Amino acid sequence: MIERFCVIGVGLIGGSIARSVRRQRLCRVIVGVDTDHANLRKALDLGVIDVGCADAGVGAAGADWVVLATPVGTFGPVLSALRPVWSERAIYTDVGSTKQSVVEAVRAVFGSIPPNFVPGHPIAGAEQSGVEAATDDLYQGKRVILTPLPTTSPDAVRQVEAVWEAIGAHVSRMDPSHHDEVLAATSHLPHVLAYALVHMLGEKDEQQEIFQYAAAGFRDFTRIASSDPKMWLDICLANREQIAPLIAQLCGELGRVSKMLDQGAAVDLFEFFASARNARQRFLDQVER
Amino acid sequence: MIERFCVIGVGLIGGSIARSVRRQRLCRVIVGVDTDHANLRKALDLGVIDVGCADAGVGAAGADWVVLATPVGTFGPVLSALRPVWSERAIYTDVGSTKQSVVEAVRAVFGSIPPNFVPGHPIAGAEQSGVEAATDDLYQGKRVILTPLPTTSPDAVRQVEAVWEAIGAHVSRMDPSHHDEVLAATSHLPHVLAYALVHMLGEKDEQQEIFQYAAAGFRDFTRIASSDPKMWLDICLANREQIAPLIAQLCGELGRVSKMLDQGAAVDLFEFFASARNARQRFLDQVER
Repeated sequence: MIERFCVIGVGLIGGSIARSVRRQRLCRVIVGVDTDHANLRKALDLGVIDVGCADAGVGAAGADWVVLATPVGTFGPVLSALRPVWSERAIYTDVGSTKQSVVEAVRAVFGSIPPNFVPGHPIAGAEQSGVEAATDDLYQGKRVILTPLPTTSPDAVRQVEAVWEAIGAHVSRMDPSHHDEVLAATSHLPHVLAYALVHMLGEKDEQQEIFQYAAAGFRDFTRIASSDPKMWLDICLANREQIAPLIAQLCGELGRVSKMLDQGAAVDLFEFFASARNARQRFLDQVER
Repeated sequence: MIERFCVIGVGLIGGSIARSVRRQRLCRVIVGVDTDHANLRKALDLGVIDVGCADAGVGAAGADWVVLATPVGTFGPVLSALRPVWSERAIYTDVGSTKQSVVEAVRAVFGSIPPNFVPGHPIAGAEQSGVEAATDDLYQGKRVILTPLPTTSPDAVRQVEAVWEAIGAHVSRMDPSHHDEVLAATSHLPHVLAYALVHMLGEKDEQQEIFQYAAAGFRDFTRIASSDPKMWLDICLANREQIAPLIAQLCGELGRVSKMLDQGAAVDLFEFFASARNARQRFLDQVER
């Protein structure tokens, strides 16, 4: 049993971790840290956390477990606040969507990566944000990637793994930079695309009419454009070295489509669409397996 | 009561029209035309149609109502088959996703647009295809755009409108080229994007791993890449003059994102993402109104 479980950033992700560990009775007291006073108030009112405060150092002092669940852009100040109260006996982990940048932020504050800090990333979320969207089963059946370094304590990794598994997640391990490469393709690039498409249409004079005749396909396709822009700003800046080449590659693919359209290259274009459909089928088969 | 209702192309769209008019008891006999023998067999077995044949001319002869529901690329031969049995007393309409190309196909076969041909397009569908996916409520609450020409009979337009409304759809009227412009933005461009993204990822060596860590956002975002490639080939070729400039525009937007990433222009990038999120909220507000 964890005595004091501290969640820094009680939004959708952090709040859902709190609700999930509570449901599984993994800890006695949950401390929530949030600089958004209204959100912290709600987290207390909803019983997601037992104790709340605005300062990461105050909240994490004396905790056995600390989860960083704020946007990755805030990790510098949050880690600086944690440093004076850092305990060698506690476990520290995070849920940041980019891992290379988190490792760098930790190194910048601590000089090296403390062995009891285990970088992690649950592949889960929704376009909603805030503690009100948090649930106690968000991680059920979801994947979590841990990116321990050679200096990370194997015991700390096992403990973090055990908590994720206890709340229903499947845990894999990966190199931080490889994580960033994979996630740039499956998550960061699609978000950029959805934002870019909706931004473009939203600036057109006839946007009202355009949206009026948009169907379910458009709704699904653009769902991720409703994601929190601050969170995605941080992710995109933190992982820009992986994302930028993919944007260029995608424009290359789109250029190929334009050329095929221009030349009326029906056979090639059919082949292009059909191979995309097949690739998505491979994705679905893999997910359902 | 329509005596003989003929659906040419008994797939998801045509089959759902047949099921819907049957449910509303709008007609006595439904004739289905399909060159895919297995699909036609299924349509008969499922009771979606009463009579089936492979030839559009044979099927449409003597019908009071004829709906063309084959991919728009087939309209030339289908209309040629209809010409010898064309009746001035019957109503003809279509469900093609591009309207300018349909009008041109009709003009190419008939020399002018017969007054009893009403071009139309239901904004409904799914990534599934074939008669087995057809339902009797697909058009419930959906939008249908009719694009009559100045020479189209107002009475024919009213009759087509009445059938769509009877099966639950909301009907609007629009100029064919304006229809194509609006749909290029909300439907054709997103399909091209989804195909291009999945095609690109599906060609990567690490595709299996990439797909393994893709989440619900990716699944939704790429859903339309599972659409029928033949249908989308036809649509994209038919409407390439509207689609190509939008592809170029979107690459321009993506180029702006790349530049902001490169320059670390946090304020501008946040503004970009936030205005996209706001635009999508306007879309949702409009849909729910």
